Amino acid sequence: MTNPIIGFIGLGIMGRPMAGHLLKAGYSLVVLDKNPVPVDELIALGAKKASSPKEVTAQSDVIITMLPDSPDVEAVALGEDGIIEGAAAGKIHIDMSSIAPASAVKVARALGEKGMRCLDAPVSGGQVGAQNAALSIMVGGEQAVLDEVLPIFQAMGKTITLCGANGAGQIVKACNQVQVALNIAGMCEALVLGAKAGVDPAIILQVLGGGYAQNRVMDVRGPKVVRGDFQPGFKSRFHFKDLNIILRTGADYGVELPVTTTVHQLFAELLDSGGGDLDHTGLITVLERLAKHEARTRIDG
Amino acid sequence: MTNPIIGFIGLGIMGRPMAGHLLKAGYSLVVLDKNPVPVDELIALGAKKASSPKEVTAQSDVIITMLPDSPDVEAVALGEDGIIEGAAAGKIHIDMSSIAPASAVKVARALGEKGMRCLDAPVSGGQVGAQNAALSIMVGGEQAVLDEVLPIFQAMGKTITLCGANGAGQIVKACNQVQVALNIAGMCEALVLGAKAGVDPAIILQVLGGGYAQNRVMDVRGPKVVRGDFQPGFKSRFHFKDLNIILRTGADYGVELPVTTTVHQLFAELLDSGGGDLDHTGLITVLERLAKHEARTRIDG
Repeated sequence: MTNPIIGFIGLGIMGRPMAGHLLKAGYSLVVLDKNPVPVDELIALGAKKASSPKEVTAQSDVIITMLPDSPDVEAVALGEDGIIEGAAAGKIHIDMSSIAPASAVKVARALGEKGMRCLDAPVSGGQVGAQNAALSIMVGGEQAVLDEVLPIFQAMGKTITLCGANGAGQIVKACNQVQVALNIAGMCEALVLGAKAGVDPAIILQVLGGGYAQNRVMDVRGPKVVRGDFQPGFKSRFHFKDLNIILRTGADYGVELPVTTTVHQLFAELLDSGGGDLDHTGLITVLERLAKHEARTRIDG
Repeated sequence: MTNPIIGFIGLGIMGRPMAGHLLKAGYSLVVLDKNPVPVDELIALGAKKASSPKEVTAQSDVIITMLPDSPDVEAVALGEDGIIEGAAAGKIHIDMSSIAPASAVKVARALGEKGMRCLDAPVSGGQVGAQNAALSIMVGGEQAVLDEVLPIFQAMGKTITLCGANGAGQIVKACNQVQVALNIAGMCEALVLGAKAGVDPAIILQVLGGGYAQNRVMDVRGPKVVRGDFQPGFKSRFHFKDLNIILRTGADYGVELPVTTTVHQLFAELLDSGGGDLDHTGLITVLERLAKHEARTRIDG
């Protein structure tokens, strides 16, 4: 596909900079978002706008969606005035949102019946990765389709991995969010235990970071957590959303995830206590409150 | 302390190579273990043997213990014919076992009343770290005492960190084992979820290892876990022991550790099913069995 026209639906904190990189790379862009601010910004940089996903699709060769959750993607793709109503053979839909694998499969099938080809391509790397065109992109779908749109991915990301058939990108994203959640939970429980026992948290980070306990979350976020800085990063309500998807997917595939389930409960408590806009490492505040509520005897050692 | 005579009690898979490094570094050694094999080996290399902790202590300036669990250390240090019966002012006791922080404090106090100075100095790095003199040593006690025995630690380890007062070394070791357990649990739940959904586990490791999900356990052990190789490494029954200490210590300090508690239950199931001698990453076999026992419908996506 030479010089494809790209439709871009969803211009939030991730989609806005991603679309910007596509413009910079020389692609023609048709954009859509409920919020006029990023739409106008991108128009000023040379993009056109459309009034519905149907219209975006009719005007584009490749349609990218970057939306909050599964129902949003299903509505934009399959709902009234959706992508499906502008569908035509040969067009490619790339959903870069993080959604339920089952939704990804459903959308790919429905659009596939209209002759479209689909990829699920969720990302990791967060807002900073989106701004720096350094995202890791996890792709589900056919190799041939990926080959066709590879330059588009390369304008937004650094690592692009074909994970399997449609839905596999979302599965690997789910696996990623399991491990990130447990990296966070481990750091938080370790720091609260150590701090309540009187050890300097900086020493805990230093020792743990030098051995088998090391993980990227602790390397990057540990010092901020110790300072009580929970400026996101990645908001805990988004990780909670991902954990909902993960547990539903586990249930779909008959996989019990007892540790992830426990972390999910802690994130629910974090959101209940008003911490949804904190960085996901703000999970430590839940553990700190639990520790405060305890009324057992203490060692004075 | 110039040319101290070192007593070494506990010559298991960790203690045996650690004592060997001290001999190689030129120290005079007095050794003790129930098992005559490592004792005879070290005698052949120039060590002397003694018949009780009391006798080891009487003949040594610095007494190192490297034993399985808290009751073993308390018995050797404070029991009949124990270190305390050979104690004298100026001698130093270094406990390098991984035990309950409360036990470390108890032993340090009791020996302190006899004029001895004490350090808790648990290690991480496992059997390979012990063999290569590459252990990370977490020290609790006074800086001046650490300064005095630093060359001894340097003969066995690469990273030596003073963590705080007596017991602080054990606290940081506990924190370390929390995070290692959660690194493992995350890898295991991610791999089981991904594999049951039909994704190649090698791809999961590759993608997760390149981003925020990265952790040292996955880097080192992930490929072995995927091959079903659970040759230790670090046996799950030792990690289970550490988790028992951690939960007890959490209770002592009024700290709830909900995620670690869930992992502890999974390790209990692993031991119940006869997996105590597997590497601690063998935890994945528990999750695989749970997934098999599920009888829910599956997506065919």
